[in-house]
Amino acid sequence: MEIRGATKADRDAVWNIFHEIVASGDTYALDPKMSRKEALAYWFRSDMHTYAAEKDGRVVGTYILKANQPAPGSHVANAAFMVALDAQCAGVGRGMAEHCLSEARRLGFRAIQFNFVVSTNTAAIHLWKQLGFEIVGTLPGAFRHPENGYVDVYVMFRSLLP
Amino acid sequence: MEIRGATKADRDAVWNIFHEIVASGDTYALDPKMSRKEALAYWFRSDMHTYAAEKDGRVVGTYILKANQPAPGSHVANAAFMVALDAQCAGVGRGMAEHCLSEARRLGFRAIQFNFVVSTNTAAIHLWKQLGFEIVGTLPGAFRHPENGYVDVYVMFRSLLP
Repeated sequence: MEIRGATKADRDAVWNIFHEIVASGDTYALDPKMSRKEALAYWFRSDMHTYAAEKDGRVVGTYILKANQPAPGSHVANAAFMVALDAQCAGVGRGMAEHCLSEARRLGFRAIQFNFVVSTNTAAIHLWKQLGFEIVGTLPGAFRHPENGYVDVYVMFRSLLP
Repeated sequence: MEIRGATKADRDAVWNIFHEIVASGDTYALDPKMSRKEALAYWFRSDMHTYAAEKDGRVVGTYILKANQPAPGSHVANAAFMVALDAQCAGVGRGMAEHCLSEARRLGFRAIQFNFVVSTNTAAIHLWKQLGFEIVGTLPGAFRHPENGYVDVYVMFRSLLP
């Protein structure tokens, strides 16, 4: 698997992944009906880094990395990951997450924070914990899950300091 | 004190308050050098409600209220408050906060979340606790305070359900 900066040529592949993840409505607080245009504007914002994970010539995952807050909060990064549904449980998420930790360090961030990890997304939470993230906050019922109703959301945090 | 929707006529007053609060750099993760144009675009965004608190014919405080997340997270509100430095400790913040709780209920939100309460902002934290907010998360060193260096930040949450 190769992980690299995403380019305009990846837009179709990124949109396909974005759309199937967001349309499922069970992990992201984004409008499941978000248009291609809105989605790509959101995922390729000029103040973020956007990456693509390629396997056998096909983009199977994408992630973004950015400052979580402006100015006096800009030393903490934020990231979001999406893996094509038919490529899940094959190490794509882990590979991107490890790449992300290394990129965040390279860019000088002191920590990474996930603001909105849906508590039913147990595979992701397991992976983040293995990679050193801790749950530092619990938002009661903050996500309306399509099957489970209102479920808790976690804030997860990992220091990047030596 | 009257609290009402802010209008274009309040822009100068809002900018004066916004600027002195943000320039002090000790409570908001916003660029202390944010321009008037950027500040007003941020504070009067079309998807938010913006309010002004008036006392003796003068705007002494302002707050915003909006959904904290899109779509499956949009039942939780987010709010931010600013009080003119020379009007602090006179109940303006409390008055706006009570107004905000009532507005959030009226708009159908199920809860309010503050994403980024700087731990050294003890007066605000005291007020939020009195109004029923709880610290549900702690972000280690997530704010670079101009005097104290890296300080913790709290996520605070209050249910609006009966």
